[in-house]
Amino acid sequence: MDEHGNKDRSLVSKVMDGLVAGIVENRYGVILPPQDVLSREFDVSRTVMREALSMLLARHMLDVRPKIGTRIRPMRDWRMIDEDVVSWRFRAKPDKTFLRDVLEFRALIEPAACAQAAARAGAVEIAGIRDAFDALRETQPGEAGHQSADELLHARILAASGNQFFQQMAAIIRGALTLVNPILNRREGGWQDVVRAHARIVDAIERRQPQEAEAASIAMIAYTADELKRAFAPEPVEQR
Amino acid sequence: MDEHGNKDRSLVSKVMDGLVAGIVENRYGVILPPQDVLSREFDVSRTVMREALSMLLARHMLDVRPKIGTRIRPMRDWRMIDEDVVSWRFRAKPDKTFLRDVLEFRALIEPAACAQAAARAGAVEIAGIRDAFDALRETQPGEAGHQSADELLHARILAASGNQFFQQMAAIIRGALTLVNPILNRREGGWQDVVRAHARIVDAIERRQPQEAEAASIAMIAYTADELKRAFAPEPVEQR
Repeated sequence: MDEHGNKDRSLVSKVMDGLVAGIVENRYGVILPPQDVLSREFDVSRTVMREALSMLLARHMLDVRPKIGTRIRPMRDWRMIDEDVVSWRFRAKPDKTFLRDVLEFRALIEPAACAQAAARAGAVEIAGIRDAFDALRETQPGEAGHQSADELLHARILAASGNQFFQQMAAIIRGALTLVNPILNRREGGWQDVVRAHARIVDAIERRQPQEAEAASIAMIAYTADELKRAFAPEPVEQR
Repeated sequence: MDEHGNKDRSLVSKVMDGLVAGIVENRYGVILPPQDVLSREFDVSRTVMREALSMLLARHMLDVRPKIGTRIRPMRDWRMIDEDVVSWRFRAKPDKTFLRDVLEFRALIEPAACAQAAARAGAVEIAGIRDAFDALRETQPGEAGHQSADELLHARILAASGNQFFQQMAAIIRGALTLVNPILNRREGGWQDVVRAHARIVDAIERRQPQEAEAASIAMIAYTADELKRAFAPEPVEQR
């Protein structure tokens, strides 16, 4: 690569665009041609082609299978969400508007996803949801695997909804959980409440009751909103 | 930049991460220090620093103001959505599941955004919504500016909702509109129906009636769903 970063960059973009055009027009089938064939097809250096492919890899549009080659992933896997930006955004100290926005967004997406999961999930998906819930219940906040079990449980419910846009929102929901869990777990008895709230959702999905799953999810988010309000309420003024 | 693209890449990532850490900890204020100062601070070449800054620029985390410098944008502007991936995804021929998922997602986001816009929009935002609607009404499908007026109208309603996650979804809603509008406009009288449906939403937002705005948005999406069903229905078998 030479020092004219911009020229290279726009060439990489052009190649990416050409590759994507070929993919959406189904010109390659399931496995991309080898890199050197693609370099010749697009008349660019192997470095530029490698760079373009790595941008598509990072977006979950491709994956590399040893001995098979570079596979084109199903379009529902393509990452519409920039997970770096989401995690950066959730790293900043949240203000009140941000918390409000997060809860409003969760209150839209999660109950709908729970209802759809109850209606559509396959047996394997339901078993995965139950497993993640068990891992959540069997660990205490602060223990290894507790936070990741919670994230996995929510991600699996989104996945089981069958809706690829809900699935895409997993990164935002994960950010929200890293934000609110430390607050929920701070209060004595808080996490038992959280486990009970999740149990109600998981049971409803297992029993395939969409309305009950939706109601349980709404209740859980309302509980979270109450706890946040309490945590951010001004301290009571002490008697002097 | 040398030929070890990977080494450079991970260095760029590390610098990006350091810049973002400084930004979210509010270490720089509103204007970033000049590039050469940053290069020295991070002990990297100006090329690497330029590359890292350009990645943040592309994500709407920074903008360059002539004579002022590189400004840090408000966090609500940071792009969580990868617009390239969204537009690539919507470029592919849609299958039935994709259309279902798009409509389900719109049916969640848009009615909620319309209700919030009716509750929260400022006078300037409402005027902007009215302007976009007028541009939609005064042009015919296929005329210059018609499609962009529709996209602008929907984006402005999302913006007026005040919720930054709804605002982030504008790219997906835009993709959905490019997908469904050609189908809606194909049928005789279709676009007059569409204008009427939008008018009801805009009126309700102007009159600050959240429930009516939400109901009008639900009705519009239900109308769209019906039209899509009709467009994709098998042709009636002709009598032989």
